[in-house]
Amino acid sequence: MQHEEGMSIVVVGASGDLARKKIFPALFSLYCQGCLPERFQIFGFARSRFDHAEFRQRIMEHLTCRYAPGESCAARMEEFLARCFYMAGGYDSTDALLDLFVLMREQEGGGRADRFYYLAIPPSIFLDVARSIGNAGLVSCGVERPWSRVVLEKPFGHDRASSDMLAEAMADVFVEPQTYRIDHYLGKEVIQNLMVLRFANLVFEPVWNRRYIRNVKILWKENLSTEGRGGYFDQYGIIRDVCQNHLLQILSLVAMEPPGRFNAASIALEKVNVLRGVPPLTLDDVVLGQYVAGEHAGRRWAAYTDDPTVPDDSRTPTYAAARLAIDNDRWRGVPILIEAGKGLDARMTEIRVQFRDVPQDLFPDANGSPAANELVIRVQPDESIQLSIVNKVPGMGMKMANRNLDLRYKAAFSEQIPDAYESLLLDVMRGDRSLFIHREELQAAWDIFTPLLHEIDARRVVPQSYPFGASRPTAAEKLVP
Amino acid sequence: MQHEEGMSIVVVGASGDLARKKIFPALFSLYCQGCLPERFQIFGFARSRFDHAEFRQRIMEHLTCRYAPGESCAARMEEFLARCFYMAGGYDSTDALLDLFVLMREQEGGGRADRFYYLAIPPSIFLDVARSIGNAGLVSCGVERPWSRVVLEKPFGHDRASSDMLAEAMADVFVEPQTYRIDHYLGKEVIQNLMVLRFANLVFEPVWNRRYIRNVKILWKENLSTEGRGGYFDQYGIIRDVCQNHLLQILSLVAMEPPGRFNAASIALEKVNVLRGVPPLTLDDVVLGQYVAGEHAGRRWAAYTDDPTVPDDSRTPTYAAARLAIDNDRWRGVPILIEAGKGLDARMTEIRVQFRDVPQDLFPDANGSPAANELVIRVQPDESIQLSIVNKVPGMGMKMANRNLDLRYKAAFSEQIPDAYESLLLDVMRGDRSLFIHREELQAAWDIFTPLLHEIDARRVVPQSYPFGASRPTAAEKLVP
Repeated sequence: MQHEEGMSIVVVGASGDLARKKIFPALFSLYCQGCLPERFQIFGFARSRFDHAEFRQRIMEHLTCRYAPGESCAARMEEFLARCFYMAGGYDSTDALLDLFVLMREQEGGGRADRFYYLAIPPSIFLDVARSIGNAGLVSCGVERPWSRVVLEKPFGHDRASSDMLAEAMADVFVEPQTYRIDHYLGKEVIQNLMVLRFANLVFEPVWNRRYIRNVKILWKENLSTEGRGGYFDQYGIIRDVCQNHLLQILSLVAMEPPGRFNAASIALEKVNVLRGVPPLTLDDVVLGQYVAGEHAGRRWAAYTDDPTVPDDSRTPTYAAARLAIDNDRWRGVPILIEAGKGLDARMTEIRVQFRDVPQDLFPDANGSPAANELVIRVQPDESIQLSIVNKVPGMGMKMANRNLDLRYKAAFSEQIPDAYESLLLDVMRGDRSLFIHREELQAAWDIFTPLLHEIDARRVVPQSYPFGASRPTAAEKLVP
Repeated sequence: MQHEEGMSIVVVGASGDLARKKIFPALFSLYCQGCLPERFQIFGFARSRFDHAEFRQRIMEHLTCRYAPGESCAARMEEFLARCFYMAGGYDSTDALLDLFVLMREQEGGGRADRFYYLAIPPSIFLDVARSIGNAGLVSCGVERPWSRVVLEKPFGHDRASSDMLAEAMADVFVEPQTYRIDHYLGKEVIQNLMVLRFANLVFEPVWNRRYIRNVKILWKENLSTEGRGGYFDQYGIIRDVCQNHLLQILSLVAMEPPGRFNAASIALEKVNVLRGVPPLTLDDVVLGQYVAGEHAGRRWAAYTDDPTVPDDSRTPTYAAARLAIDNDRWRGVPILIEAGKGLDARMTEIRVQFRDVPQDLFPDANGSPAANELVIRVQPDESIQLSIVNKVPGMGMKMANRNLDLRYKAAFSEQIPDAYESLLLDVMRGDRSLFIHREELQAAWDIFTPLLHEIDARRVVPQSYPFGASRPTAAEKLVP
């Protein structure tokens, strides 16, 4: 018999979209892959009133059978749902959490259990919930077993000061090693592959510096509108929603020095180091945009401010591009473009590392005008790695052209590509914080954007309009290296 | 009206396989692509008695319509064949060549014409034919127009001394700048791409040296027997037939320093430099093999010595592997394996550049045992470039595995891949000797093998037997780095 601790997973905000569409499906996938401990139970907590059966019915709708195909799936779902329980209550109600505590103890069967809290709720109530959990006595001290861990999802504050305040207040309940700040991009397979690509291959590191690299671009595009959910977005804008977290996280992995060890502390140290090398941005470094109505994919899309949940006079950017620098030996002088936008012409996230020209053109008389080498790492969709190289085109005479050395995940790997949340939730259970945002990273990331965000507010900067479906606002072209 | 010189192409040995299967089809392809001058005529010369019509009938059998599809092909063939003429005569007969001269003058219509001699004959009669051509007054002096040029195909002698003697004697008729020593591997598209890959891409050159490269392999395999043509082969053996020419030529392009200019003289200089850096081989550096009967591709193959044209006691190697070094700053300490064999398990030619391990294993706990990076350049068949890189395998936990960044010519290029002879014949017409073997290269290549060849003869070295269809003789494993 296995003397394993039990585990209670508490999903606060269990009736919301994030919980239903991402967290419960990820937990079910982990269950099907045998990644959950033998004795586990899951508790949903939210304000809506459901009984256990209604709650199970709601979450079942989004469970899929990727790892338990065919007949076995229904049986596995039933087993899984039998371990799911629900408790309704106010987020700031210690009493409600005491009720949850009773339910948990009941289901834990009196044994010791690790506790894992996923706060799938708006950040404005993080603190209320955390304090109620703490007051209800649901958090074990320190990081020894049985452990208590909390998972939070961005946004973490509005700027450096508010982020610090939140972090400090949260630390009264959950200390830093118990805190797992999730950025689901860090769980994406291609992003997890970045360190392997850079440090487990001899061929990339020698050219991964300013001597060989002309520029780096990190691009995030969506061809969707805010679609009635603009009310939330409008409080934050694209910089806080995408640039300050997802794009800076990707940048830190692309640009970091090799960590001494492959563990959370060493990785966080190097990520912080590289972010600390980025001078704070000013208005001169950025272009802001907001989409207006436009045609895309065969239909008419309304303007951002036409979203009924968005104020008509909103100045919130739905697009931002920033040209930044990294002031260290590896990157000095290499422009780095980060760009994020909704209402653009495509949905994709990619990293483009463009190399310099060869020092001497040995083929001045060749036909064709080949471009410099470029490594394109496609995060989504259709994950791939492509290195554009110059070749002689077959045929008489010397004609040169670029072609790609190609690695497409779908063709190269028979393995399923798991959802980012699966990897990340498993890491929380394992206590591996490598793919989570440590407090110093969060501070360094805010320091890059905070003066700019304040300047935008102070000057009431009006973003440039661009039609829905554009590749980028025209003013942003000047930033593209 | 274009005041272009006419051109007479003389194919000596016009009734042989090389002429019919390679040279005339290549000339026809060039004609279809508009690469021949407006006024050209082709003269076949050989001992067999044909009239023009019979000769045209014979060469027509091998013409294909790759560049003139459909209906137009028959018309183009007819036009082409109407420009083809034939003259029979002894190879050492100045009289016969005087007759050819009369025919040529007649067809050239009295204008000045460049003259292009392709000696598609055994090397033993190169000199007789060249002298007869010279004596018949068919060679213009120097390299001015109208020019005279001669194309020769290996083997160029048996060793350094015989090669020098032949070269010097030939030089009485054709001086070095008029001499085009063909190695058809140099006309292959992937080989022509080698310099572009190395010098028009920034990403390869920084890692193209002993600091990053563990070893280089140049492999040539055939899964055929000598098939009744062993009599010719038996005089030379695999070292003279493949290693000394094709493989050293490929090696020189893989290993050379960047030439100052992309022209014949600069390229030849650097090729000679790198070959001069290779210390002469000794018996300790090589493994010789000769295939015996074996099973391959579902049938039984006879031994080399069962070929009725091969002596029963032949010691001629059908396989040779040599481990060589290049004694310069770039390559010191990097083992280079060249390997060539008939009667092996596959037909292919490829270049494998294996890189070193990463200096520090950042992922000691990862699952999988990924290999070091390797660049594989497939010359034939199915031309391709592949770079094996280490990736995180999608899924829970850190598992690493190699996958290829892939560039397959057939998928990447819509252009037809021309036969090597097309490119090379066009270069002769254009006077571009970049892809031909200059005399100094020939000398340097012979210097690498001549002491070994003499030692093999002197010691009557018996090659190791290997069954037809083997991947290599077992003794050769020790040479593989």
